[in-house]
Amino acid sequence: MLVNRTALGVYPPTNWGNYLSDILMSVAPPGLKNVQTHMCGTCANEQAFKHIFIRHAREKRVGSNFSEQELASSMLNKPPGSPNVAILSFKGGFHGRTTGSLSATRTKPIHKIDFPLFSHWPAIPFPNYKYPLEENVRENKAEDQKCLEIFEDTIEQQKRAGYPVAGVIVEPIQSEGGDHEASPEFFQNLQALCKKLGVSFLVDEVQTGCGATGKMWCHEWFNLPSPPDIVTFSKKMQFGGYYHTVEMQPDKPFRMFNTWMGDPARLFLLEEVLNVMKTKDLIENVRKVGDRTLKGLVEITKEFPNLIHSPRGRGLLLAITAKDTKLRDTILGKMKAKGILMGGCGDEAIRLRPALIFQDHHSDIFLNRLREVLHDLK
Amino acid sequence: MLVNRTALGVYPPTNWGNYLSDILMSVAPPGLKNVQTHMCGTCANEQAFKHIFIRHAREKRVGSNFSEQELASSMLNKPPGSPNVAILSFKGGFHGRTTGSLSATRTKPIHKIDFPLFSHWPAIPFPNYKYPLEENVRENKAEDQKCLEIFEDTIEQQKRAGYPVAGVIVEPIQSEGGDHEASPEFFQNLQALCKKLGVSFLVDEVQTGCGATGKMWCHEWFNLPSPPDIVTFSKKMQFGGYYHTVEMQPDKPFRMFNTWMGDPARLFLLEEVLNVMKTKDLIENVRKVGDRTLKGLVEITKEFPNLIHSPRGRGLLLAITAKDTKLRDTILGKMKAKGILMGGCGDEAIRLRPALIFQDHHSDIFLNRLREVLHDLK
Repeated sequence: MLVNRTALGVYPPTNWGNYLSDILMSVAPPGLKNVQTHMCGTCANEQAFKHIFIRHAREKRVGSNFSEQELASSMLNKPPGSPNVAILSFKGGFHGRTTGSLSATRTKPIHKIDFPLFSHWPAIPFPNYKYPLEENVRENKAEDQKCLEIFEDTIEQQKRAGYPVAGVIVEPIQSEGGDHEASPEFFQNLQALCKKLGVSFLVDEVQTGCGATGKMWCHEWFNLPSPPDIVTFSKKMQFGGYYHTVEMQPDKPFRMFNTWMGDPARLFLLEEVLNVMKTKDLIENVRKVGDRTLKGLVEITKEFPNLIHSPRGRGLLLAITAKDTKLRDTILGKMKAKGILMGGCGDEAIRLRPALIFQDHHSDIFLNRLREVLHDLK
Repeated sequence: MLVNRTALGVYPPTNWGNYLSDILMSVAPPGLKNVQTHMCGTCANEQAFKHIFIRHAREKRVGSNFSEQELASSMLNKPPGSPNVAILSFKGGFHGRTTGSLSATRTKPIHKIDFPLFSHWPAIPFPNYKYPLEENVRENKAEDQKCLEIFEDTIEQQKRAGYPVAGVIVEPIQSEGGDHEASPEFFQNLQALCKKLGVSFLVDEVQTGCGATGKMWCHEWFNLPSPPDIVTFSKKMQFGGYYHTVEMQPDKPFRMFNTWMGDPARLFLLEEVLNVMKTKDLIENVRKVGDRTLKGLVEITKEFPNLIHSPRGRGLLLAITAKDTKLRDTILGKMKAKGILMGGCGDEAIRLRPALIFQDHHSDIFLNRLREVLHDLK
């Protein structure tokens, strides 16, 4: 398969189902029984939206077939065949760069400007926590509550305006937008509202998935009473795709279809990645080294409270925030000069994205050099 | 690179530029000096649209920077930052299955129904020729003229309605839609109108490119006085992407960006595909065997005029049309039972998509079995 570009959509290999079971389903989020491969994170989200829209339309149609009017109007990109339905996303969310996924992306203008996007898709605030969490329990709980109220209001407003929300897309930790986390309770309540309001619940694990947070999937930290409707993946997983519930399966053939539908060559890479993760117990490693690194960041923050604040995250998906954008960029530059690549995200945040093999001694090197850089900047 | 998923968007290998020059640019359409790799045909078209929108906005902005109003409104998916601009496509055109590319796709409802799409993007008729071409010169010329007039009118109407067309996307041979071809003169005039009206001209060679028509790119048959603004590719090219003119290059960094930006593993497959195409002179082979096969189809059509008609195409991208959909599907089924896989397209067409190594003796086997099947159906 490395030297043959298989057209999975047309002629999948006879053993393709076994590969999916043995490799992809071995790490499926708890409760999700279906998987669909695609190319990258952007198209995983785009195609996941289509599952959501198909489900939404099917439930509205209650068993009846496509009407003549729907069939005809769909060819004109007009309702009812091409309905005015929406995906709700969160301000600061990043979900990709094609038209659908970019309509849901709300990070910064340079990602979006000049492109036609869906003006009726709503974006609402994501919780913005105060740190340290243990000293701000009441404020952060109120923040959760505020966002959930806006969510429910927005769903109702959209319905009244004739632009109903078919699904919500959310990152378990908003990465590109500034490494914003939200509490398990926030996600539990968000999911409960989705069920109550008939909205599909899509968790975008493109950046957070595959062990980075000390669990295979970040949303496993949230103890959701039932699985999300769809979980998208890419990046560390070597190619894009999603897991979904049986209910999200389209009821007609060729609805989710293209020539390649993914790339088996990358599936075999994933197989070996997962083997190494298992034999080396890398997710446990991520939890241990992550805890130690976060403790280190908390200490350093106390040493330099005028430079950085809000150490946070799960596993090795950690972040701090600099006092301002200029300082953030200076820190990134000075760390790079010391041989350490870190990423900026949001306006002032610094995100850590080490590999799963990051060890205690790497953590020490990192923390020491960060301390040196901040000391020079004090 | 086979065992490492390179993040080309962030850390391209130092020799990546050489690979692009040596492999991809060695088969660039005449006159196109830039190339951008992506994942598949769908995202190639999606991202190509973004180049078109960036160019459109830049020309409107005439050198000035993004305004505060543009920056702010882009975050809300609203004009002026997210402008009401459109891509014009042709009825019967297939350009992919994500929101932007699917808004331009106009094949059949099952591809489009239930999904929100851009209702203000126009689709106009593609020429629908009478065969044999040499006996219908006048009618087909009038058909070209009619479509070009509708094109010009539509561009003007869209402008007046506040939904200006930034670009047109067109297949050199409409494949999924029914293997509809158009004359070199049609494409020359279409391009001339695009230049006159300030509309970018995108040729979608996802299905027609890489030698299938007896030229590396099907649009080379059209003797265009200057290259198209963008030419997208995928399928036989092993991964998606596009060539474009220097003018289509965004003038700011990170405008066309994601993590992977393609897959080097597939570029090396393409290198070997191109080596074989060159050493075995496969494009010349396609022209020769294609001519012979088309002659055979013309003869068979004369033998069974009540069953099939309109033999057509270029190189080995050939097609015939059955009397009706049911007969078409019966022919496909009976040919499959005889060991020959062919594809349906449009409502009644049968498309041939043999590999570039298709030889005279394969052509004989195919023509004989088709004759047998049609004889049984007579």
